[in-house]
Amino acid sequence: MSVSNLPLKHLFEIPEDTIYLDGNSLGCLPKGVVGRATDTIGREWGGQLIRAWNSAGWMSLPQRVGDRIARLIGAAEGSVITGDTLSIKVYQAVASALKMRPGRKVVLSDSGNFPTDLYMVRGLLQTIDAGYELRTPEPEQVADTIDETVAAVLLTHVDYRTGRMHDMAEITRRAQAAGAVMIWDLAHSAGALPLDLAGCGTEFAVGCTYKYLNGGPGAPAFIYVRPDIVADIEPALAGWMGHDAPFAMELHYRPAMSTERLRVGTPAIVQLSMLDEALNVWDGVELADVRKASIELSELFIAEIERRCPQLTLASPRDAAKRGSQVSFAFDNGYEAMQALIDRGVIGDFRAPNIMRFGFTPLYLDAQDVLAAAGILEEVISKELWRDPKYSARSRVT
Amino acid sequence: MSVSNLPLKHLFEIPEDTIYLDGNSLGCLPKGVVGRATDTIGREWGGQLIRAWNSAGWMSLPQRVGDRIARLIGAAEGSVITGDTLSIKVYQAVASALKMRPGRKVVLSDSGNFPTDLYMVRGLLQTIDAGYELRTPEPEQVADTIDETVAAVLLTHVDYRTGRMHDMAEITRRAQAAGAVMIWDLAHSAGALPLDLAGCGTEFAVGCTYKYLNGGPGAPAFIYVRPDIVADIEPALAGWMGHDAPFAMELHYRPAMSTERLRVGTPAIVQLSMLDEALNVWDGVELADVRKASIELSELFIAEIERRCPQLTLASPRDAAKRGSQVSFAFDNGYEAMQALIDRGVIGDFRAPNIMRFGFTPLYLDAQDVLAAAGILEEVISKELWRDPKYSARSRVT
Repeated sequence: MSVSNLPLKHLFEIPEDTIYLDGNSLGCLPKGVVGRATDTIGREWGGQLIRAWNSAGWMSLPQRVGDRIARLIGAAEGSVITGDTLSIKVYQAVASALKMRPGRKVVLSDSGNFPTDLYMVRGLLQTIDAGYELRTPEPEQVADTIDETVAAVLLTHVDYRTGRMHDMAEITRRAQAAGAVMIWDLAHSAGALPLDLAGCGTEFAVGCTYKYLNGGPGAPAFIYVRPDIVADIEPALAGWMGHDAPFAMELHYRPAMSTERLRVGTPAIVQLSMLDEALNVWDGVELADVRKASIELSELFIAEIERRCPQLTLASPRDAAKRGSQVSFAFDNGYEAMQALIDRGVIGDFRAPNIMRFGFTPLYLDAQDVLAAAGILEEVISKELWRDPKYSARSRVT
Repeated sequence: MSVSNLPLKHLFEIPEDTIYLDGNSLGCLPKGVVGRATDTIGREWGGQLIRAWNSAGWMSLPQRVGDRIARLIGAAEGSVITGDTLSIKVYQAVASALKMRPGRKVVLSDSGNFPTDLYMVRGLLQTIDAGYELRTPEPEQVADTIDETVAAVLLTHVDYRTGRMHDMAEITRRAQAAGAVMIWDLAHSAGALPLDLAGCGTEFAVGCTYKYLNGGPGAPAFIYVRPDIVADIEPALAGWMGHDAPFAMELHYRPAMSTERLRVGTPAIVQLSMLDEALNVWDGVELADVRKASIELSELFIAEIERRCPQLTLASPRDAAKRGSQVSFAFDNGYEAMQALIDRGVIGDFRAPNIMRFGFTPLYLDAQDVLAAAGILEEVISKELWRDPKYSARSRVT
């Protein structure tokens, strides 16, 4: 019943006495990453110095790592480039989309989107200051809200709080039927489930790599551009690394004739090398197997928690087909309960106002982990261990 | 005559048989950095996982590292924040400046500015698409070109090709007298010479940390904002890390009431930790001493090269007071000559069309290094060793 080669716990450093259900926030450390960072810093930077931009392949690293991500999200080679942060990549995608649809004045997103996506759009629209409007209907209403005034539809595929998943193919179809440009945020999708970017025809997609792709804290983001539109994109963030010939030092900007035009400044080489190394764990792994295992683990967790903890209410879709790789439960004292749980070695996280969030990462989680976590959560809830004052939100740092 | 505690070669990993005159492009590796990266990745990320955002102080790292840079550029604590790339920080500064001067339609820079600064401004102006204009007079003409149409003056303090240095105090004064917002790019200044940002009153400054600050390839950039104007800045790149309460996950953006509003997305924690460690070499170092040593080394190099290599023409200002911490020579076969020089262990770099560039970093260079480098360059030039076909530009990778 279980997928043959999963989990791959031996490829990760997992702290003892820890069940990690927060890989949807920051993935675990793959074993080769410390060694790779040491090599990049000590041998390449320390030993080759400035020459390493060529000798160690630093210049092409953003594209090479992008190609490895492309395979995991159903995109063609050359269509994904890495760098910057997800916030910056959202800005690039939306700014590009607005240039592609002059005259249309609406950016459509939804109220469940991750805040930074909405903030970045607002910042962009205020910068342009030309009568643009950001609309954020409820997620369920988005598809019916798309009309001919919409320049771009920006949606996060999997909701960060509840795991609710948009129908990527259907919404893309409806956006494009109305003449709008589609942009998918894959923060909670890349590495969590099979994707078919090329097949669905979306113009843009963006994502981060520190969640299911295990790139580490602050790992570079990525952006996908449909190959047939790359040559028409006018980069808002026209940095020298996106120039056709960065070292020609021309006074005028000529964008690269590839996805590289969405590079901006000098890439974070050490974090890119770490990400490159982290992607090795995907060799021989099929996303379909990951998805199957993720659903098994999630279904098991839901069944166990609903049986053991009636005080908690499922906040995720019950239908696994409409859910990403996380399960959330609403509980009024969820903040305190999560602290009590973490104190006992089960690490999930909390999202305001009352969401206890658990991520399922089949690369380093199995059914025994899930059962053990359910048992500890049951103890925290049934014995009301979360009432201990040390778990109070008043002691919260962020 | 020489400054007492410089150089500090024992704090750096310097490859054997190498004289490194390219610290103005990528600084040398400080010894503690590999260990610090290993600790951040292995112990903090690997061991503490998501908890490290609080337990390891990751959330406040961009500000803490900013404070350490502030001391080196004559800025007050709290007025410098780190993150992203220099290109992104240029965009933030110029976009903010335009909002501060509605009605004015000119961004003034100069033709000697580093290309990415100009590219980023053009990208911004095209995005706004409201009749803005970028003017790039010759560097010597900038001061006289400032008038009441100018919203922002964006200049790189030290020219990347020639080392020619603008008069920061005087140009800032003239920009502000005309009602323009001043933005200084300190890419070739921070860590190279004493700066007094607070004293000169500039509204903004931006810089990178992988040159004289030795943060490593792709190290985070920084931005300075004059404290009295922070509260009025409308961030164009309104990322969640610049929000007053990032984890409140509010739908509406409320910028932090400090320089933190110029944070954007999730910071590159590993590279920030490396930079934090690299800044330790500055403990007990005074920029005035660094400047004094830099001038001594530069003057020595100029005298030796002019005596030994009459084929080369000084392309930097002869007056040390008008020059940053680099010396450039024009030579028509400069590309080939630089390759021949690098092949013999003297690492400088080349900038089109004909500039051989040498950086002087007194933290890890002394007069003996300079004399040895001059001797090797003399051999390359006098014996025309650069004519070897293997040094041809045709074999150039970038």
